Amino acid sequence: MQNTEPLILREDKNGISNLILNRPKARNALSLELIELMIREIKDINENNDIKVVILSGRGPAFCSGHDLKELKSLNNSEFTKKVFEKCSEMMIEIIKLRIPVVAKVDGIATAAGCQLVATCDLAIASKESIFATPGVNIGLFCSTPSVALSRVVPRKKSLEMLLTGENITAESAVQFGLINSMVEKNSLDCEVEKLANIIAKKPKRIIEIGKKAFYEQLEKPISQSYEYASEVMTKNMLENDCIEGISAFVEKRKPNWDL
Amino acid sequence: MQNTEPLILREDKNGISNLILNRPKARNALSLELIELMIREIKDINENNDIKVVILSGRGPAFCSGHDLKELKSLNNSEFTKKVFEKCSEMMIEIIKLRIPVVAKVDGIATAAGCQLVATCDLAIASKESIFATPGVNIGLFCSTPSVALSRVVPRKKSLEMLLTGENITAESAVQFGLINSMVEKNSLDCEVEKLANIIAKKPKRIIEIGKKAFYEQLEKPISQSYEYASEVMTKNMLENDCIEGISAFVEKRKPNWDL
Amino acid sequence: MQNTEPLILREDKNGISNLILNRPKARNALSLELIELMIREIKDINENNDIKVVILSGRGPAFCSGHDLKELKSLNNSEFTKKVFEKCSEMMIEIIKLRIPVVAKVDGIATAAGCQLVATCDLAIASKESIFATPGVNIGLFCSTPSVALSRVVPRKKSLEMLLTGENITAESAVQFGLINSMVEKNSLDCEVEKLANIIAKKPKRIIEIGKKAFYEQLEKPISQSYEYASEVMTKNMLENDCIEGISAFVEKRKPNWDL
Repeated sequence: MQNTEPLILREDKNGISNLILNRPKARNALSLELIELMIREIKDINENNDIKVVILSGRGPAFCSGHDLKELKSLNNSEFTKKVFEKCSEMMIEIIKLRIPVVAKVDGIATAAGCQLVATCDLAIASKESIFATPGVNIGLFCSTPSVALSRVVPRKKSLEMLLTGENITAESAVQFGLINSMVEKNSLDCEVEKLANIIAKKPKRIIEIGKKAFYEQLEKPISQSYEYASEVMTKNMLENDCIEGISAFVEKRKPNWDL
Repeated sequence: MQNTEPLILREDKNGISNLILNRPKARNALSLELIELMIREIKDINENNDIKVVILSGRGPAFCSGHDLKELKSLNNSEFTKKVFEKCSEMMIEIIKLRIPVVAKVDGIATAAGCQLVATCDLAIASKESIFATPGVNIGLFCSTPSVALSRVVPRKKSLEMLLTGENITAESAVQFGLINSMVEKNSLDCEVEKLANIIAKKPKRIIEIGKKAFYEQLEKPISQSYEYASEVMTKNMLENDCIEGISAFVEKRKPNWDL
Repeated sequence: MQNTEPLILREDKNGISNLILNRPKARNALSLELIELMIREIKDINENNDIKVVILSGRGPAFCSGHDLKELKSLNNSEFTKKVFEKCSEMMIEIIKLRIPVVAKVDGIATAAGCQLVATCDLAIASKESIFATPGVNIGLFCSTPSVALSRVVPRKKSLEMLLTGENITAESAVQFGLINSMVEKNSLDCEVEKLANIIAKKPKRIIEIGKKAFYEQLEKPISQSYEYASEVMTKNMLENDCIEGISAFVEKRKPNWDL
């Protein structure tokens, strides 16, 4: 009998979309079907004007344990594995390209491509008990795609240590090394993540979109080109109604009257 | 009656140029006139052989509160705003291209383009009470140009947190996340910054120039090209009189006799 | 009488190659001969299928004090210095390109090109008493080549502080700023480094090789190209025998039966 539970749960409420990986027994392993569903959900969210921020979490004891090794093994042929890794990379890039921010809410293990997901999300908060690792080396499959995301948020020597040894790091270390923004008590995780999401949801969506896009685009340019590009972005940003109202409100010492 | 106080104060003494933003009532907001003056001063300092290091500070309770929003609003047209953002980016690039190091001395708030200024300076020391933020999102003008500088000194997830939430970080956090070099008691700020500036002022100026330029240029190249470039820089550096004397002094176990 | 001691000691044992800089009286200064020997050893190790990890250390009170200034001075001509800096850069690049990881074991000073060596090694552990610096500016020879390695592991403002002031940082600071992975008591340094080396030596060598190469290559690409490249690496990695066995073992909940 096939599992008829959806692989991803989604609940949109008050401008926040809760995306929940829903393969708790498989520790939310990223089967091809799950990855493709995620891409679809992200694209759908991208078209939805009411959603202003995404919270990504995992049901059960794991945030996400990475690729579905059983599936990779049982369907082991180059065509299939190629597709899995390409689609998984596509999913990561879709998170970066998504117009609105994604906050990872981590409670439990986040390993391999699961750790990569955390590294890829714009922001991340984890419970104290959470564990992070890129342990692919221990099963003969080096975490090369995870290293793309990891090496862009975690300093180089620590990234290499995680990748070469495959060892776990605690949530505390994850904060220290920049993999996550903060660590909280397990019982306040929902509340803290929602607080952060609400802060962002109360900003003008169009402005957040401009800023997220500009942030990632400027990162990849030489600095003088980054400034040229960002100056243009600022000039265009000034023409936005939210900006005209925002600056007026600031100068007039009142709250902006945004139609959020 | 127009304010006849100069927008920038400058005092050169013992090889150190003190550049002081002087719009305390406007929290040293970067009006176009102030930006253009800054560029002029930086270019003038660049031509001055007696100055070996710059200390950049702000008069009054703020280091710098970013762009002059009143001016942007009152003169709101695309031509003007375009010019402001381009000139401000030019100012940041002039600081990077300035032959000698710039130390930010921060006492008070450093927000938006003010925070960008701190991130852009080669070094920065702040008083404990100082506050840093990129709060543009709160007025509908995302800190996209500040993100260029911020994202090159502060880890990615923390940069995004500051940019997306607009929230303040303390001087202590600013040290922790690499935005500033150190934090000191308010009453020892002048003394500590001067100490750092004097350390640099006592090095041979020509050598500091070679090193600062090489540092920023190599950063933008792939590593093998960086090494090719930096090896050439080293070879040329060896021909400098300050280097010939410096190495001789080292080998002969005496102090170098530099004509500083 | 010429010193007949070899400039580098090497002992290969249990898959670990111990490379020891052996000019203790010269604080392991990098004479041209020593650099060329190092390149030869690294290339030799690269061809050796039994070695899985390298430990790089220095005999005597210093890890490595950088270039051999006496030699640079006595043979001071542009041809020679050019060759020294080019060969030293080549040595650093050979460490990066070496198929297997290099762990720096630091006990004592690591300055200038010695600090660069530490920054270049994939991993590094130091004794508490170790000292790190890029003090070239103090002898008129700015640490421009060291800055290539330093700026890729240490945050920008701290890198500039080290380079512009030439001041020492402690092992504790080196950990904090990402220059080394960890700091241990002097009397447990050997043991801790060996522990780390053994962890890596017990992974399948071919997989470590794939991962190290991919890590450095993806770092230099824009993120979408990095993902394209890394996805291909993963797909190929899946075809490795070590991976087929590793995933089978994982799925079958047994230890992988690798022929290490």
